[in-house]
Amino acid sequence: MSQINHQVRLAARPTGLPQASDWNIVEEPVPTPGPGEFVVGISYLSLDPAMRGWMNAGASYIDPVEIGAVMRAGAVGRVIASEHPEFAVDEHVYSAFGVQDYALSDGSGVMKVDPALAPLPCYLGTLGMTGMTAYFGLLDVGKVGEGDTVVVSGAAGAVGSAAGQIAKIKGAHVIGIAGGEEKCRWIVEDLGFDAVIDYKAQDVRTALREVASKGVDVYFDNVGGEILDAVLTRLARSARIVICGAVSQYNATEGMRGPANYMALLVARASMTGMVVFDYAARYGEAAAEIAGWMREGRLVSREHVVEGGVSAFPDALLKLFRGENIGKLVLRIGSD
Amino acid sequence: MSQINHQVRLAARPTGLPQASDWNIVEEPVPTPGPGEFVVGISYLSLDPAMRGWMNAGASYIDPVEIGAVMRAGAVGRVIASEHPEFAVDEHVYSAFGVQDYALSDGSGVMKVDPALAPLPCYLGTLGMTGMTAYFGLLDVGKVGEGDTVVVSGAAGAVGSAAGQIAKIKGAHVIGIAGGEEKCRWIVEDLGFDAVIDYKAQDVRTALREVASKGVDVYFDNVGGEILDAVLTRLARSARIVICGAVSQYNATEGMRGPANYMALLVARASMTGMVVFDYAARYGEAAAEIAGWMREGRLVSREHVVEGGVSAFPDALLKLFRGENIGKLVLRIGSD
Repeated sequence: MSQINHQVRLAARPTGLPQASDWNIVEEPVPTPGPGEFVVGISYLSLDPAMRGWMNAGASYIDPVEIGAVMRAGAVGRVIASEHPEFAVDEHVYSAFGVQDYALSDGSGVMKVDPALAPLPCYLGTLGMTGMTAYFGLLDVGKVGEGDTVVVSGAAGAVGSAAGQIAKIKGAHVIGIAGGEEKCRWIVEDLGFDAVIDYKAQDVRTALREVASKGVDVYFDNVGGEILDAVLTRLARSARIVICGAVSQYNATEGMRGPANYMALLVARASMTGMVVFDYAARYGEAAAEIAGWMREGRLVSREHVVEGGVSAFPDALLKLFRGENIGKLVLRIGSD
Repeated sequence: MSQINHQVRLAARPTGLPQASDWNIVEEPVPTPGPGEFVVGISYLSLDPAMRGWMNAGASYIDPVEIGAVMRAGAVGRVIASEHPEFAVDEHVYSAFGVQDYALSDGSGVMKVDPALAPLPCYLGTLGMTGMTAYFGLLDVGKVGEGDTVVVSGAAGAVGSAAGQIAKIKGAHVIGIAGGEEKCRWIVEDLGFDAVIDYKAQDVRTALREVASKGVDVYFDNVGGEILDAVLTRLARSARIVICGAVSQYNATEGMRGPANYMALLVARASMTGMVVFDYAARYGEAAAEIAGWMREGRLVSREHVVEGGVSAFPDALLKLFRGENIGKLVLRIGSD
């Protein structure tokens, strides 16, 4: 076991896309657990568009990462040393352990995971926050019903690919929006979406007129920007827009672009509602059990896009999300399972 | 009785503010009722910001007014000739009779009104569509509860002044946003709002920090634009934004301005929902009875801003709404009661 704990700490608040100078990669000694503590050797880190927001100062749904602090990140790993009665060495755990090789924990906010039931990266994806976000966003906020026309943006991403599949399971007509031929093929051929719009090759507004001819009942939005505006022009009566993210806007340097077509909400008597997955923590177990069942039955495909390179590869790996280079859940391998 | 029916017909679809050349003022003979028909001598016309939307081509919540057609307008008047078994001469009626002196009707969509219970203009305002919009928008869509902090924009306008007063009756802490000292004084002194922000003299965002220190639970939006963006920065958890109108944007020539701060919906787990009063037609009676009761008890003040000048004064009177020159419900007097 290495005696060094590599960490990525926030050095500066970025303007636009995070740059190398916004990070400090530091070396610390591996922590030693005190009474009631344990140390986790991290196996995989979750890379999420939301991380960009955590780097900004100011009030949001979660405190910003302070300058000098280890960058926040969800992670799965294995207990390698423990003075905690409830966490034994070699147990696998999930928490927001941060971008580092090793994390010290007192067990608060830590969930045990079982690598025999699903590969570890899956607990960052479909069985983790990603899956929870898709599940509660689509069902609780979007209130998807049988026969609804559902549009999902960022459809080849982690949350979008899960949301679209859950909508299919619930009997909806599902249209994905993604960029590039490979992603679009995956969505239709492997995930079973009814239709896909390649926003890099097609005009979204025109394409929606064809594939969502009866209008859009639920729009699960991960991207914001022009695509949100395009979908607003095609809302069905009483449509529900779930605001999960706005990845197209997170690195805007000239201020966010608001949805100019928002008065379509009035015309359609529609709603646009924001959601944060943490609110559903008490029901994660219920959702994970249902999702795991769908995966066993082969009705929900989970795909993880694993980047190698360890902690020091984090700054560049994060940018893949904003360049749209990932298919499925983007994770960074840190150490062994 | 005049033998001429003056009408305002739509001559062209405006760009920006409607101009004189967008209208044709024509003279027609006064219609004669056939079997099952009656003729109404119009007393007052309702002037509404929504009229600007009806002048645009394209799908909306209501068909556009066709070029060459009489401009759509809600109106109250008196039956002056009738071949209809259910409508007798001298009965008073409300409907979308249009911008003209006389209207021919078969009774569909016509409601009888009683000038002994309230002055005729009141049936265009607090007891009419205006009051219905405030009532259902605030209570059904906004779900206002006791102790909520409610912000109303366009608070000295017809819908806004009613919405704020209904919120007060329901036990909310009510903040109005309006432009100019006279309007602001009226809102607080005569209508009993708890606070007011003069957007022409104050920075709305800064002012809200003081008067809505616990955050905004319900925002009843009549204006859109910068004010919507300012309120978005002060949402309380689970806030409801009622999208009733966007008068600041109706005459925009460079496209609508979308709410750049809409991701505040996510941070606050808030919703933004559009409403159209026509959906509540089956419940107008219930709402009007409750509103009339509040008026009798002196808890709800109704103010009508009557413009004289008849049909030919319509084009200029309409512009008062967009210049913010009205206090309370703007109506145009056409003929006698």
